[in-house]
Amino acid sequence: MAVLRSYVSGSWRTPTDEGAPLHDAVTGEEVARFSTEGLDYAAALEYGRRSGAALRELTFHQRAALLKALGSYLNEHREELYALSARTGATLADSRIDVDGGIGTLFAYSGKGRREMPNDTVHVDGDVEGLSRGGTFVGRHVCTPLRGVAVQINAFNFPVWGPLEKFAPAFVAGMPSLVKPAPQTAYLTARLVELILESGLLPEGTLQLACAEPGDLLDHVTEQDVVAFTGSATTARRLRVHPAIVERAVRFNAEADSLNASVLGPDGDLDLFVKQLVTEMTVKAGQKCTAIRRAFVPRDRLDEVVAAARERLGGIVVGDPSVEGVRMGALVGLQQREEVRRQLKALGGEIVFGDPDRVEIAGDRAQDGAFLSPLLLLGDPERPEPHEVEAFGPVSTLLPYDTTEQVIDYAGRGRGSLVASVVTEDPAFAREIVLGAAHWHGRVLVLDRSCAKESTGHGSPMPALTHGGPGRAGGGEELGGVRAILHHMQRTAVQGSPDVLTAVTGRWTAGARRSEGVHPFRKSLAELRVGDSVTAGPRAVTAEDVAHFAEFTGDTFYAHTDEEAAAANPLFGGIVAHGYLVVSFAAGLFVAPEPGPVLANYGLENLRFLTPVKVGDGLTVTLTAKQITPRENADYGEVRWDADVVNQDGASVAKYDVLTLVAKDRRDR
Amino acid sequence: MAVLRSYVSGSWRTPTDEGAPLHDAVTGEEVARFSTEGLDYAAALEYGRRSGAALRELTFHQRAALLKALGSYLNEHREELYALSARTGATLADSRIDVDGGIGTLFAYSGKGRREMPNDTVHVDGDVEGLSRGGTFVGRHVCTPLRGVAVQINAFNFPVWGPLEKFAPAFVAGMPSLVKPAPQTAYLTARLVELILESGLLPEGTLQLACAEPGDLLDHVTEQDVVAFTGSATTARRLRVHPAIVERAVRFNAEADSLNASVLGPDGDLDLFVKQLVTEMTVKAGQKCTAIRRAFVPRDRLDEVVAAARERLGGIVVGDPSVEGVRMGALVGLQQREEVRRQLKALGGEIVFGDPDRVEIAGDRAQDGAFLSPLLLLGDPERPEPHEVEAFGPVSTLLPYDTTEQVIDYAGRGRGSLVASVVTEDPAFAREIVLGAAHWHGRVLVLDRSCAKESTGHGSPMPALTHGGPGRAGGGEELGGVRAILHHMQRTAVQGSPDVLTAVTGRWTAGARRSEGVHPFRKSLAELRVGDSVTAGPRAVTAEDVAHFAEFTGDTFYAHTDEEAAAANPLFGGIVAHGYLVVSFAAGLFVAPEPGPVLANYGLENLRFLTPVKVGDGLTVTLTAKQITPRENADYGEVRWDADVVNQDGASVAKYDVLTLVAKDRRDR
Repeated sequence: MAVLRSYVSGSWRTPTDEGAPLHDAVTGEEVARFSTEGLDYAAALEYGRRSGAALRELTFHQRAALLKALGSYLNEHREELYALSARTGATLADSRIDVDGGIGTLFAYSGKGRREMPNDTVHVDGDVEGLSRGGTFVGRHVCTPLRGVAVQINAFNFPVWGPLEKFAPAFVAGMPSLVKPAPQTAYLTARLVELILESGLLPEGTLQLACAEPGDLLDHVTEQDVVAFTGSATTARRLRVHPAIVERAVRFNAEADSLNASVLGPDGDLDLFVKQLVTEMTVKAGQKCTAIRRAFVPRDRLDEVVAAARERLGGIVVGDPSVEGVRMGALVGLQQREEVRRQLKALGGEIVFGDPDRVEIAGDRAQDGAFLSPLLLLGDPERPEPHEVEAFGPVSTLLPYDTTEQVIDYAGRGRGSLVASVVTEDPAFAREIVLGAAHWHGRVLVLDRSCAKESTGHGSPMPALTHGGPGRAGGGEELGGVRAILHHMQRTAVQGSPDVLTAVTGRWTAGARRSEGVHPFRKSLAELRVGDSVTAGPRAVTAEDVAHFAEFTGDTFYAHTDEEAAAANPLFGGIVAHGYLVVSFAAGLFVAPEPGPVLANYGLENLRFLTPVKVGDGLTVTLTAKQITPRENADYGEVRWDADVVNQDGASVAKYDVLTLVAKDRRDR
Repeated sequence: MAVLRSYVSGSWRTPTDEGAPLHDAVTGEEVARFSTEGLDYAAALEYGRRSGAALRELTFHQRAALLKALGSYLNEHREELYALSARTGATLADSRIDVDGGIGTLFAYSGKGRREMPNDTVHVDGDVEGLSRGGTFVGRHVCTPLRGVAVQINAFNFPVWGPLEKFAPAFVAGMPSLVKPAPQTAYLTARLVELILESGLLPEGTLQLACAEPGDLLDHVTEQDVVAFTGSATTARRLRVHPAIVERAVRFNAEADSLNASVLGPDGDLDLFVKQLVTEMTVKAGQKCTAIRRAFVPRDRLDEVVAAARERLGGIVVGDPSVEGVRMGALVGLQQREEVRRQLKALGGEIVFGDPDRVEIAGDRAQDGAFLSPLLLLGDPERPEPHEVEAFGPVSTLLPYDTTEQVIDYAGRGRGSLVASVVTEDPAFAREIVLGAAHWHGRVLVLDRSCAKESTGHGSPMPALTHGGPGRAGGGEELGGVRAILHHMQRTAVQGSPDVLTAVTGRWTAGARRSEGVHPFRKSLAELRVGDSVTAGPRAVTAEDVAHFAEFTGDTFYAHTDEEAAAANPLFGGIVAHGYLVVSFAAGLFVAPEPGPVLANYGLENLRFLTPVKVGDGLTVTLTAKQITPRENADYGEVRWDADVVNQDGASVAKYDVLTLVAKDRRDR
């Protein structure tokens, strides 16, 4: 049987040792062998760091486009991944969570990269911060990619989703990855990485794979690297204090399994609660860091919950995932099963469903596989064990509670969890639990009949939402959304003149030089430069204008129509022009009416009316190109314009951003 | 001489030991004594945690208002703090940086709290994330205060600013602080805390002071506490691996001194460069973690820089800060002076100004003080020492460079700095340096003639900007701006139905129930509820409307006026109504014209035109109260309304947020 290869320093390396066997969780057959040697990690990391240069030359949008293409490519190879996944003990439904979920993460980060980051190599974070009265000195944050390698140490339970969840944000950030899979299921991750490399989509060196002993890997990480770990809390603690990580203040992110709670509200739907509980117990045979370990039930509903859970669990067919009707597969291996049995003893409580030593197994070839019955316990929430001992398998404990305050307290006794869920039809109860327990949780899901059909479920982290949790869950909140991308970048505060800020950020900054000349609406996206501007006006606002606008639009608000009432308004002290009249007149001033590269005004942002416009005021507007975002896959892009409308005294009456679509070519006709 | 007291567990504790003497840096006289005993830290932390409940009941705006009041109170006691500060060796200018800077931080966080956080106890972070096609299941992040204590371990050099910089964001977040000052200058921090407690402004227990040995302090921190450290990189590393911090995944933030660079560009203004360099060398006698340690100069400008620096340094009068004309005070103590002399030897290089063993001291009573001459060295940037050895005093090294690429490389050899600065008149050069070196820096300042007058300077962290840096600087980026507040809170992803999200966040969420009835513009702020809404329409858009609006406003863009040209537009395919016409008509539909609680429309946000409006379309608008923000110190507040304009097919043509000011009372007249 072949020993799994590693892809490091630009080539596939076949280990020289015989490796240790990896077994099919269902049949016990050998699937592959895993090297017991290390690798030249110093070289691999250095190679990765050098490879980052090519990645950093791409814009966020270009990286996002590659991720999307990669997702599509992997989608076409799902069947192959499912087949390997089945050997880890996974049912097809489990494999879909791992494989499709992983691919979905690529698409999700592709979308985040395109929609929430610029088509540029520098990410601008937050607004301009004024640092001086006169406005000649301002500040803003930029984020640039760390120039190291994202070292990703994964758990065995999600050999596809796990690596992709970490790779995707690192890649969008512009940082190469080195993936270290857990041995048990490494053959699936190895095939995933092979597929990715075969796609030829990624710049060389941006993804490396270490199917090897970790050895001295962490000795070689430096200040510009990032280490992300998923696995047990114990290992997380050990890695966190590694001398190189501490000495060099290396960013370290841990996502550890935790004792997640689910709370049935006094009014909660019993079926929804029990169905979700059983799903979480049986998906991936309960080997999920997000699974429900503690199921809190109002004391007076305990009997009905036990009865319903028994009935539903009784219908779960355990066995060979390839057999029709099987609902729960195997644990990842016999060793893991022994571990779960050990933890079960430590956990204590009364078993209300299942037998740790006996389970009926569907499928002839599966009789020696790592199967275990789902095990539902009934525990005492005042004892410490249910809040401290985790059996990483199809195991949950029912725990009765009497009051809302009490169940919030119990939830916190897990001392930090990835997720909790609440089943209730009462938003007020949901609020009480969520806000009462939020400080102990990275994620809280509220399940009710209105969302049950579309709910993504207690156990599924979503790419747009934080994945991680405080305390026992590892203290991480770096996975999920744009934050996960920024975790791979250095945030730097830049201070200087508006001209300097404009040059550094690529965005026009108020107070910076403007360039007048050809009307900027006549310039194509390729010709337009940040700072290009037009000033137009003045246009006088007459009493007739205001009266007419009121009558025409129907906006007869008293401040525009009733002199006496308007005079009593504490902010206006007399008739004022409509805000919408001001922006409409401004558009009339700055527009270039003939067909040209500007295709449409698709929106407007951050509009503030700063000074009331009175009858007789003269309006002048200056429009300045602020940010130019070509689209990767269209013949146009977005241009954000700074609009500043001033009155005859030079006071700003309105400031806002105008959003337009502008063609890449000139489109003169 | 009295031993400094601690304020813990609700009362001032006088140590029972005699303590160790703290000396006046200028005269060597004893100022106070510092206990050599520990404290009952377990009790103090537990007391702090209990005290958090009262703080968490206040809204962010209420906490912000208390900070502002505290700033004003301390402003009135500045003279007293200056006097004590002088005993640490500080000149009046130094004291202003420490004292006024610290008070300014209170005002800055007060402003951030009021402007960037809601008047509520829950902070909503980011937008709603769609998690389902049908919209019945959505997600959003909330931030809630950690229920522990912010343990703040401070350095000796900024005994006022240091504690306040950490206390302010913790307080706004809703988390009590326990301040542990460095012994050398603890008498000043102790007086600061006395003043704060005397003000009576803060809820009891939200600020504790430990003038004592740290002892077993960190043994007692738990998952809900936060530890922030400012000081040496060595100590930061030691604390980071404390078993309790690691075991419980306690948030740990370090801000360590670093080898900060300043780069003179080939074209940079010599005077600005030298003046800033000398300022950074002499302010606080160079005892600043942000001071310039490495001054990079184009090789061909080295001679002129040396000459100019010598001249300017020659004019620096060193001595008793109370003596007229003194520009640089003392180091914090004789021990620190010995330390600097030791480091100076390790640093190497040629001394081009100053004598480490001799300095002329102004002031008779100061002859035995901890004074040291400013020391300017000339070093070899290819040697490791200038990039590794820090002399924490009035010491900088000039280092020549030849190319831009080279100086960027040199800057990075500090392996992580709090700040760098660049002196140039060329924004392109500034961009090259800033973006080339950003990954090694928490902050980069660009100095040119246009901003020199208003620049806050290389050495001054600003409350709105990140303070911290990668690698050697401690790896922290948690100080500065709203991020510093959120560092004291748990971010939790909440998933559920729109109604649940509305209940949990206090903001109306698209898809949630609306309540129609009395026109919501007729309700006072006190009466209005999130979800209150009005639907009005339809109003038909006629060809005359569009033509008239074009003529009236002057917005004769071809898509509104020229059928043939509009037909050729790839997005419209025919005449469309102006976007501003749509929002104006919508306002005409939803407005309640008579005087009432709605005082003004002060802005608009997130406007997107989603479907072109054609002639003949009928517009209907629904306006829904989304967020209600009463002001603490006014008789009105802000209401954000969700506006959704749909056409006759029910398709949204425009969505946006309308921002209004609404009176707290009804104001019917």
